[in-house]
Amino acid sequence: MSRTSNIDGLAHVGIAVRSLDEAVPRWTDGLGFRLVDTITLDSMGLNIAFLTAGDATIELLESFRPDSAIGRFLDTRGEGIHHLSFFVPDIEAALASASEAGMQLIDRTPREGSHGTRIAFLHPRALGGVLVEFCERKPSSGRVP
Amino acid sequence: MSRTSNIDGLAHVGIAVRSLDEAVPRWTDGLGFRLVDTITLDSMGLNIAFLTAGDATIELLESFRPDSAIGRFLDTRGEGIHHLSFFVPDIEAALASASEAGMQLIDRTPREGSHGTRIAFLHPRALGGVLVEFCERKPSSGRVP
Repeated sequence: MSRTSNIDGLAHVGIAVRSLDEAVPRWTDGLGFRLVDTITLDSMGLNIAFLTAGDATIELLESFRPDSAIGRFLDTRGEGIHHLSFFVPDIEAALASASEAGMQLIDRTPREGSHGTRIAFLHPRALGGVLVEFCERKPSSGRVP
Repeated sequence: MSRTSNIDGLAHVGIAVRSLDEAVPRWTDGLGFRLVDTITLDSMGLNIAFLTAGDATIELLESFRPDSAIGRFLDTRGEGIHHLSFFVPDIEAALASASEAGMQLIDRTPREGSHGTRIAFLHPRALGGVLVEFCERKPSSGRVP
């Protein structure tokens, strides 16, 4: 059964790295990405660098707590792509639709993301090992309907 | 040293799956993606399903030869994200720039992709384990300058 998508597009690709100092130049000097912002998310034990090229955005995720989700990912998998984040206009509606379709959720209610966004993760079991994040922009952001 | 980007945006995320029959419904029924096309690339031993949601595109990659790149990936890593594909307006120029910046290449010259595109892969060693593809659209495609 097909249904209407709650997804507007790809917000970013999240990539786990051991060191932002080493990883950022690979994407800027190596591929011509532009470093837009670097923030610290204390609640998740993360330093995050945001980079863009054209309309593509990537987040480089560096853990500063070994027990963070990214710290554990690096321990077991090493550096690499961690998650895909998709823009949704209404994150509660997107979570409800996914749940009704039988998708297992990590977050049943949204939590705070960076830059005023609200985010929620689906369980990677729901999508063959791919960790998917829903991301709702804050109301003042340009692309929110 | 920062430089001008040769990248226009993200073409697609490539995801390795064991079975298109099982994987496609996760993204269509589960997340509301639309199945746009399914093709066979004999040269690479692949069946590929193209799905979109808003302006996001994913490729689900099913191997029908155990010795294909995706077959080997599934054997060693299991299902999951395989590569990121970025649109470039001039694939020879993008490869030359990446090479000059010291990035290791898998393909020094472009090969045929799907839908008339030309593609080339960088070595994942160049980007901390992330496999990146450059993708040049065919001249009749809308977004080529």
